[in-house]
Amino acid sequence: MNDNQKLIIRHRLGLALQKLLEQNKQAPAKNAVNSLHQLATAADIEYYIVQNVSAGKKDPQFTTLVSIASGFNIPLSELIAHFETITDEAALKQIEQQKKNAKKKAKRK
Amino acid sequence: MNDNQKLIIRHRLGLALQKLLEQNKQAPAKNAVNSLHQLATAADIEYYIVQNVSAGKKDPQFTTLVSIASGFNIPLSELIAHFETITDEAALKQIEQQKKNAKKKAKRK
Repeated sequence: MNDNQKLIIRHRLGLALQKLLEQNKQAPAKNAVNSLHQLATAADIEYYIVQNVSAGKKDPQFTTLVSIASGFNIPLSELIAHFETITDEAALKQIEQQKKNAKKKAKRK
Repeated sequence: MNDNQKLIIRHRLGLALQKLLEQNKQAPAKNAVNSLHQLATAADIEYYIVQNVSAGKKDPQFTTLVSIASGFNIPLSELIAHFETITDEAALKQIEQQKKNAKKKAKRK
């Protein structure tokens, strides 16, 4: 797998987390986490790790993923099933958006 | 998650890989991998990484898992479903066995 493929996979995973948080916002179940801060607390993981995974900036270890799934209170296979619904196109869109934002930020400096 | 819980999860994942290889040996499908060497080649991952994951000695990154599933020619969610069937007890058994083997090895020296 080359670096570009890895980048796309990281972003697909990140988008899966965002989608799950969004779903929990729309149809709040009891104790369901609906923000990265709540997820980090429920998963017992540092906030910056959860944030970086959700932004596609981190390739998490397996045990971190297990913790994230438990933070969502779902089986890991369900989290992965969500990941599998995210297309490469959606990942590429997030990557482009991040690039644009980075450029804007650089211009402001 | 504490270190002991991580150890158990790593071993459950390793046992899931071993189980999949064993299943492929029993009922060989076309092009199905049935050894760690074949898996490493099919997944395009270094052999020692696949070996360490299967022995519960490595906590792989997410993209490595995606490669391993593609080496098995199954969706990642299916690999994770196998992981979820492996009990903590089975993991603890493998951990004990590795400890015994290490002791034997130390004695021989």
